[in-house]
Amino acid sequence: MKPTDAVRDFTRLQRDLWCREYLTSILDFDGETVAPENGAAARAEAMGVLSEEHHRLLTSQSAQDLVAELTKQQEAGALDDTTAAELRVFARDQREALAIPTDEVAAWSRLTSEANAVWHKAKLANDWASFEPYVDRIVETLKRHASYLDANRDPYDVWLDQYERGMDAASYDAFFNQVRSTVVPLVHEIGAIPTKRPAFLDACVPEAAQMGIARDLLALEGLDPAGCALACVEHPFSDGFAPGDVRVTTHIYEQDVLSNVFTILHEGGHASYEQNVDSAYDYTCLAHGTSMGIHESQSRFFENYVGRSRAFMEPLLSILCAHAPEAYEGVDAGTLYRAANIAAPGLIRMDADELTYPLHIMLRYDIERMLFSSEATARDIPGLWAKLSRDYLGLEVPDDARGCLQDTHWSGGSFGYFPSYALGSAYGAQFLAAMRGDGVDFEGACAAGDLAPIAAWLRDKIWRWGRGKDAQELIAGACGAPFDATYYCTYLDTKFRELYGL
Amino acid sequence: MKPTDAVRDFTRLQRDLWCREYLTSILDFDGETVAPENGAAARAEAMGVLSEEHHRLLTSQSAQDLVAELTKQQEAGALDDTTAAELRVFARDQREALAIPTDEVAAWSRLTSEANAVWHKAKLANDWASFEPYVDRIVETLKRHASYLDANRDPYDVWLDQYERGMDAASYDAFFNQVRSTVVPLVHEIGAIPTKRPAFLDACVPEAAQMGIARDLLALEGLDPAGCALACVEHPFSDGFAPGDVRVTTHIYEQDVLSNVFTILHEGGHASYEQNVDSAYDYTCLAHGTSMGIHESQSRFFENYVGRSRAFMEPLLSILCAHAPEAYEGVDAGTLYRAANIAAPGLIRMDADELTYPLHIMLRYDIERMLFSSEATARDIPGLWAKLSRDYLGLEVPDDARGCLQDTHWSGGSFGYFPSYALGSAYGAQFLAAMRGDGVDFEGACAAGDLAPIAAWLRDKIWRWGRGKDAQELIAGACGAPFDATYYCTYLDTKFRELYGL
Repeated sequence: MKPTDAVRDFTRLQRDLWCREYLTSILDFDGETVAPENGAAARAEAMGVLSEEHHRLLTSQSAQDLVAELTKQQEAGALDDTTAAELRVFARDQREALAIPTDEVAAWSRLTSEANAVWHKAKLANDWASFEPYVDRIVETLKRHASYLDANRDPYDVWLDQYERGMDAASYDAFFNQVRSTVVPLVHEIGAIPTKRPAFLDACVPEAAQMGIARDLLALEGLDPAGCALACVEHPFSDGFAPGDVRVTTHIYEQDVLSNVFTILHEGGHASYEQNVDSAYDYTCLAHGTSMGIHESQSRFFENYVGRSRAFMEPLLSILCAHAPEAYEGVDAGTLYRAANIAAPGLIRMDADELTYPLHIMLRYDIERMLFSSEATARDIPGLWAKLSRDYLGLEVPDDARGCLQDTHWSGGSFGYFPSYALGSAYGAQFLAAMRGDGVDFEGACAAGDLAPIAAWLRDKIWRWGRGKDAQELIAGACGAPFDATYYCTYLDTKFRELYGL
Repeated sequence: MKPTDAVRDFTRLQRDLWCREYLTSILDFDGETVAPENGAAARAEAMGVLSEEHHRLLTSQSAQDLVAELTKQQEAGALDDTTAAELRVFARDQREALAIPTDEVAAWSRLTSEANAVWHKAKLANDWASFEPYVDRIVETLKRHASYLDANRDPYDVWLDQYERGMDAASYDAFFNQVRSTVVPLVHEIGAIPTKRPAFLDACVPEAAQMGIARDLLALEGLDPAGCALACVEHPFSDGFAPGDVRVTTHIYEQDVLSNVFTILHEGGHASYEQNVDSAYDYTCLAHGTSMGIHESQSRFFENYVGRSRAFMEPLLSILCAHAPEAYEGVDAGTLYRAANIAAPGLIRMDADELTYPLHIMLRYDIERMLFSSEATARDIPGLWAKLSRDYLGLEVPDDARGCLQDTHWSGGSFGYFPSYALGSAYGAQFLAAMRGDGVDFEGACAAGDLAPIAAWLRDKIWRWGRGKDAQELIAGACGAPFDATYYCTYLDTKFRELYGL
């Protein structure tokens, strides 16, 4: 099929948009890793120019005309599959960008920047009161914006769907109810069993050795150093920047090498996803992971299903012993397995183990639901946080810094985002079952430290599709069935009962 | 004075152009420091988009109309001094960008990218013949482009003026003749004196210690870490990226700590210049150093006039001893001074000492002159290189990799650029004299390791002006007289005769 002028213009426009996204990522990475602090204002200036231009390019009259023309061609069956997929995603991005009036976009950006700065100080000073009014203003604004996007839908459902297409409060309610009924009693049972933290977990492993461990783990995950950079930052993240260019970051604590190990396995999962999108999608709107939930399913897959599995302990021990012989020689695989899977409720979501993690998400989800349904306002949050921490984690919250001020998300306006964190782990359990059903020898691959068969399945079913399929379509394609939280609950129940002899 | 609409549009346009330059710097820095190699194609794509947009913004009809309107306002005395200076530089940038037809700009970019790739391989393979045809094509194209810029002027003069405003072959001839008559006999006299290289110069100083030395030296140069990032690269460079954001890079050889010391002092000089441009010029076309020659005058000032002075040896020794006590304890200031100033002709320009450096530049200048006057073609270059190396440096050239293939500049089309490297050192000597004439206690400042009085003079006379003044105007303002190479020749003659007891 010969590309029409419109298809050529569409390709050019997507490249121009891609370029802004790539530059924004590079700027952000530079800011997190090396830029001096006094350069922040100039970086913000450039970020502003890039996002303004991105919005202008996406929503211009000519871009709208292009979508209209291509839609006609699509209806006439004149578009190839790749272009049709690009058009579907591009048109949705454009429709959503056009929905919010331009002056409200600017006002929203000012509100969240201000809120974020206030939150930073509030967390340090344990001062909820200073941040509280912003939460109400943000929720208020998000309700209005949701009505622009879809006036006939519940506002919180609109935002849940933005972060994970196809999800709404009813489906999350069902998911969290099922998780709650499995995890909460299990956590209480485990809490009654005394656990000893082995000393090797706190052994000092110097930075250079930890960087060696990180590089070995990335290679084991199949990431080619020629296409994957590694850097240290305060809050680790990872991203696909461009064809042949993914970035993984970590944070090194010399007294906690396993933190680095699981951070790398997690971030490497995100990076593998980004690096393996079909190259036919390079420089287009499809060139990234499709959703937050699917992205977390990949990172948590490598962190937990692979990384904290019994079978993986042998290759992991070899890497640890190669770089930190003093700390790890003499540790056996069974001991490492139990140490890497200690389940104990804590106050901080980011430090949570595999079992208690979803409880932190449920806590935030419950509060978000109440704010959007007007059952609660920001003033009620500290009280709700205390109550839910008791119910879910069995813990008293000593202060707001370790409670409702611990996360940055609300200050940036990300309501509806947290729940997708928990979904990711649950998707992963279903992928694991499907992979086994397709004949992949998962334990064998983990034990051999050769993850290629696992990666091949994920590449075929998930990675290569980029944004070409939404989450639920990907799951149906990969698993031959819709999402079902039973896989996750069964996995957690079996693993932790076996681990704790319950 | 109330800014007119045109002035506001002009400010906005300059910000948009600034943004492209800043992003290009960030991309380039990312590529040199951390980006994985497979990301090169995507980076090139983004670089292409940025430079295309920069050219389009600078030369658009609306930008031309803006210049015409502001020129009218300027003639009516309606512009403030800053805007008038911006207009002068902007209009010149625009005129020059418009001079070369767009299709020739693209062809030139393709030619030089190809030539650069060929040069890289040719240098590794010591294969001049593969690169030779590109040199002729590049010189041919540059002659044609020069005629677009100024049809009535000798093409080489046009390019010399592009790199250093106000300079032409006649003024460079005079300069190089004077330098030659001072330096060549001095080099021959010194060559006859046996010199012993002290062992401490080759002592191993580990990377971490060298980074500590680098940070101390930058602080001593007055660079605030909050506004200046430090990174390691293959070929060190430095640049001002944005208000509050300058970058210094170095390369660490564990067996050659002084290479790092003088690289840092040099790059720190460039960075100080960029960091101290008047903040009224932030985000405008005046927000950088004014020329290559002036920039080198600042970097070489800190590297040589300060860094290799007798007076500076005490503070330098303290820093070296603090980080590398095994290597430097027991070394005295006189010994370090002589070791840091060993003058010995070598084949490689980048490794040259303070005295023989200008001879390398003269060699390239002589060849460029002959290529542009058609006295020679690329085929003659290896022969000319051998002859001039004998005449200036007294050395035989063993191969082209260490001869005419050593530098990247010609492959990128930079003819007329080399001469400005030598000028920089010469400007520096004249600034030193002017500074002393203005009462700055140069030796006292160096000896105390408190360079603030030196920086204050440079800030006032050079740095703050940014691109607001061209080189010759800056020199006249700083020194009360036009450029005169006598200061430089006298400085070299006095210093090296004293050092070598001649």
